[in-house]
Amino acid sequence: MNQLVSPFYRAPLADCAPDLVAVARGSKPADLVVRGGKLVNVVSGEILPDMSVGVYGSRIAFVGKDASHMIGEHTRIIEAAGRYIAPGLLDGHCHIESTQLTVTQFARAVMPLGTTGGFFDAHEITNVLGLQGLRLMLDEARTTPLAAYMQVASCVPSTGPELETTGAFLGPAEVAEAFTWGPDVIALGEVMNFPGVVFGDDKMIGEIQAALRAGRAADGHFTWPVGDWRLAAYAASGITGDHECVTAEDVAERVRLGMYAMMRRGSAWHDVARTIQAHTEMGLDSRRMMLVTDDRSSESLMQEGHMNFVVRHAIQQGVKPVTAFQMATINTAERFGVARDVGTITPGSCADLILLDGNLADVNVTMTIAAGKVVAENGKMTVDLAPFRYPEEATHSVHLSREVHQDDFRIETPVQSGTLTARVIHVRENHVETIEKFAQVEASGGQLQLPADNKICKIAVIERHRGTGGKAVGLVSNIGFTKPAALALTVAHDSHNLMVIGSSDEMMSRAANAVASVQGGLAVVTEEKTTLLPLPIAGLMSDAPFEQVAAQSQAITEALADAGCGLNYATMTLSLLALVVIPELRLSDKGLVRISDEGFNLVPLFVD
Amino acid sequence: MNQLVSPFYRAPLADCAPDLVAVARGSKPADLVVRGGKLVNVVSGEILPDMSVGVYGSRIAFVGKDASHMIGEHTRIIEAAGRYIAPGLLDGHCHIESTQLTVTQFARAVMPLGTTGGFFDAHEITNVLGLQGLRLMLDEARTTPLAAYMQVASCVPSTGPELETTGAFLGPAEVAEAFTWGPDVIALGEVMNFPGVVFGDDKMIGEIQAALRAGRAADGHFTWPVGDWRLAAYAASGITGDHECVTAEDVAERVRLGMYAMMRRGSAWHDVARTIQAHTEMGLDSRRMMLVTDDRSSESLMQEGHMNFVVRHAIQQGVKPVTAFQMATINTAERFGVARDVGTITPGSCADLILLDGNLADVNVTMTIAAGKVVAENGKMTVDLAPFRYPEEATHSVHLSREVHQDDFRIETPVQSGTLTARVIHVRENHVETIEKFAQVEASGGQLQLPADNKICKIAVIERHRGTGGKAVGLVSNIGFTKPAALALTVAHDSHNLMVIGSSDEMMSRAANAVASVQGGLAVVTEEKTTLLPLPIAGLMSDAPFEQVAAQSQAITEALADAGCGLNYATMTLSLLALVVIPELRLSDKGLVRISDEGFNLVPLFVD
Repeated sequence: MNQLVSPFYRAPLADCAPDLVAVARGSKPADLVVRGGKLVNVVSGEILPDMSVGVYGSRIAFVGKDASHMIGEHTRIIEAAGRYIAPGLLDGHCHIESTQLTVTQFARAVMPLGTTGGFFDAHEITNVLGLQGLRLMLDEARTTPLAAYMQVASCVPSTGPELETTGAFLGPAEVAEAFTWGPDVIALGEVMNFPGVVFGDDKMIGEIQAALRAGRAADGHFTWPVGDWRLAAYAASGITGDHECVTAEDVAERVRLGMYAMMRRGSAWHDVARTIQAHTEMGLDSRRMMLVTDDRSSESLMQEGHMNFVVRHAIQQGVKPVTAFQMATINTAERFGVARDVGTITPGSCADLILLDGNLADVNVTMTIAAGKVVAENGKMTVDLAPFRYPEEATHSVHLSREVHQDDFRIETPVQSGTLTARVIHVRENHVETIEKFAQVEASGGQLQLPADNKICKIAVIERHRGTGGKAVGLVSNIGFTKPAALALTVAHDSHNLMVIGSSDEMMSRAANAVASVQGGLAVVTEEKTTLLPLPIAGLMSDAPFEQVAAQSQAITEALADAGCGLNYATMTLSLLALVVIPELRLSDKGLVRISDEGFNLVPLFVD
Repeated sequence: MNQLVSPFYRAPLADCAPDLVAVARGSKPADLVVRGGKLVNVVSGEILPDMSVGVYGSRIAFVGKDASHMIGEHTRIIEAAGRYIAPGLLDGHCHIESTQLTVTQFARAVMPLGTTGGFFDAHEITNVLGLQGLRLMLDEARTTPLAAYMQVASCVPSTGPELETTGAFLGPAEVAEAFTWGPDVIALGEVMNFPGVVFGDDKMIGEIQAALRAGRAADGHFTWPVGDWRLAAYAASGITGDHECVTAEDVAERVRLGMYAMMRRGSAWHDVARTIQAHTEMGLDSRRMMLVTDDRSSESLMQEGHMNFVVRHAIQQGVKPVTAFQMATINTAERFGVARDVGTITPGSCADLILLDGNLADVNVTMTIAAGKVVAENGKMTVDLAPFRYPEEATHSVHLSREVHQDDFRIETPVQSGTLTARVIHVRENHVETIEKFAQVEASGGQLQLPADNKICKIAVIERHRGTGGKAVGLVSNIGFTKPAALALTVAHDSHNLMVIGSSDEMMSRAANAVASVQGGLAVVTEEKTTLLPLPIAGLMSDAPFEQVAAQSQAITEALADAGCGLNYATMTLSLLALVVIPELRLSDKGLVRISDEGFNLVPLFVD
């Protein structure tokens, strides 16, 4: 167990209690005392002046006005000097893979920003590597200073073999197994197959039952519009949280049904400003409201921040600062049943503290203490984190049957030449949904010819888990390319096959092979250059430091923009084009999938 | 297991989820629909009009505007007709033994008043019968419609064999064993030995560790005055709740340290009016504030009520009605980690609902539904509860070495005759504490002679667990007797030996023998009559119906008043005179015990 050797190991409170009591009464010196700060007390909802916190090992022994009786020769003293002392911030719903960072590098990125823990749904790596992917991220997380709780992905795969070739399968038995790994396997991840739950699908209900029987929570993902009474049926299954709220009414409906409403500010999903109105305008009790990020890119971590940014943003909507902090600390911890360990500054809790300068509303973090250790100061990590080694099978997950060739992207037409009507996946900026459009396209020599203005591109999905050689090619619009260009990526939700988008077959093949040659990642090919972001871990995550990944990610964004694709967080939006469960039109390695009220159906590219 | 045959069995949510989802979507008819009520939504903190609740089995399947799609031929429909629908009330800290009722009769008493569950510390029966006492009450509780969660008493005995002869012993191993009996063994009961915790006593810390390792909460009992920094040391042990708050500052201190502050309105402990000011005047977040009863007599259940009375009283202090309901529902359930099961009206929760007439602030309960069944209407139970049989060893727990004789109450004096100075236990009405007083008393014939005005009485404690014949006799004042009279009782906290108070040795012996002849209870003897309340179960609880016990209890109160003892809830106050851990002077079967900052010490009756 990595945790036994981690300097940031968080021993259970039962093991620490005798020492904590001894330190608190002054019979044993504290390891660390933070004194003279304004305590952000998220339990009582107050800011208390002139407070001190005594720490022993990974936990808080004492909170009070005067901790001088526990200061010994070797006690480290930190003068808060009037700064705020707040609980470390918790991200209540986050996919680390979206940052394209390892857990260790994610920790390096977010801990100087005040995040000390989170509830991570390893949905992406599990779709590629199965339970082993979750296990690897859990093992890595246990080596970091983060209070990192992992969720077991519930919808792996999101569909079935009739619609796409998937990398892995998890059912109730696998979910139950994961919960035996430790209390830090905390919940069932977002149950996206909400129609399955409502209509009693055995796998979905079985996984929820496995979570409940293990004493764990189950997270939701329900996107039918506000006012749909079937949300109550979804809640009756035992699901008690949902981050798919986009309006205040969505939040109100969920809270009223006993669910925790997670209000999201990801890189591309900007939901807090509207959802928070359930509190600021409708006046609902905020105890079951949480702030979360869901998906943030490494670039947006660098440019905007993490939970510090989200909490500040919530305050700017008119939430009282201490209430906004509650939404990223105690509420989150209570939602997952771990408020005895994290989310408050109280005796017995893990010593996860942040110091903040200026006004509380600024959320200006200047020091982060996690598991009793000072881990970051003035925006920089102050401790080195040991790298975690992923095994061969995790770093060699791109299995193609052969090199990709430009002919792989040919689209045969039913006629030798002439005009045809074809389905086109139309991308919407800042929206998860696509639009099914119909375009007139030209055939020549029995092949489809892309229009010269680059307004319609080809999109291909090539199976990459088992080297079956399976692939499909379709059409996509609103990419924005103004010149010949191609993008290839192995981050292609949810099955993460190799997706290629481009206006040139030759460039598409080059981009695909560039990605395959580094065992996954993103590549942009134009006439001038090839820009590469290698993501060798499951084809999803880099093994490089955060700063390097953010720079590479930025280079990809710039290369795309240079080619004319200026979509906001373009790769995040485009990576969803293979997600064959969200309306209206998507592409898998089996072909075009149309998602509507009638279900999920393979449809032909050309229509009569 | 009784629970398997109980018509009120609450199956785990995991087992019910498929059916609940089916009912909610309309594929299966509900058993019960309550429609057209004003829903008291304690999650969102709102009152929602025109709401319906669909129930299947013991749980809620649906909450929404329209439940017509789940109404079948056999669905029972209850028209709320504009009444409020609120979650059933939960008592967050209660000793059922204080009512002198069995759990079944307690349920009969409180369920028509709107109480549908509670967190019961079987501290008294455990002091007499050990773990078996807890097990019996647990088994009985499982047959009732109550959501009854039991706590494992932590301080059995409250002292040791040097200070008194006790009935039972529980340590960390016994605590751990009790938690294996089921999830309804919910927490460690109030850890009254708070100095032991603060100073690292192995038994106390060990029991808290056993609770934490079993994933259970530990309840507190800390009575050092406000501002004592050692409360933080107590909290560092892992204790997260305390009902010994008597001021708003007590509440604030506890909440700030992450504890749940339980605000108490027992028969004799009237703490809500002051403690609630932590919310109404200091403005603290109320999420960790709870309303509890601690100890209520059967008479006060009948005359005032139970949690309905406490919630109404809180509202009368200026708490918003929905907030007061939160303090007796969701807050309480969250404190014990069972908010998925009780404390809210949400899909998946147990169907524990009450209907209320008039204004919400009136807390006028007209119907109680528990575990999906209508159990009470218009103040009366509508279901019969099967009696629970306590075994022989529980109903024969008074073991005296022989009949009590009037000479047993003689007090030998160190001189044949003259005036002596003696310690006297001075009773304070409505206070738990006693005062150590010194009185001039007369000796004659080598024996102490009570003054003729009855102002000073004798008090005796006779060991009754093992028939050792051990006893001690002392003096007590402020009983109020205006004529010769005696009171005997086997309810004598915490060891529940046989206590006798009187102004006549002969009447004391008659009272003692009257109680012993019925295997425990209370008896008042005057020249006119003997009034008896038999409590054959462990010498603590009656096996008679609630109404009969309340009448007998009332008769005891009247007999005492008739003899001049008009103390408010006299027997409750007097039953604490053997509790040798609360200042200042008490009596055990070993003699007078003085409790002070110097500890607990046996002291002589006569001083030089």
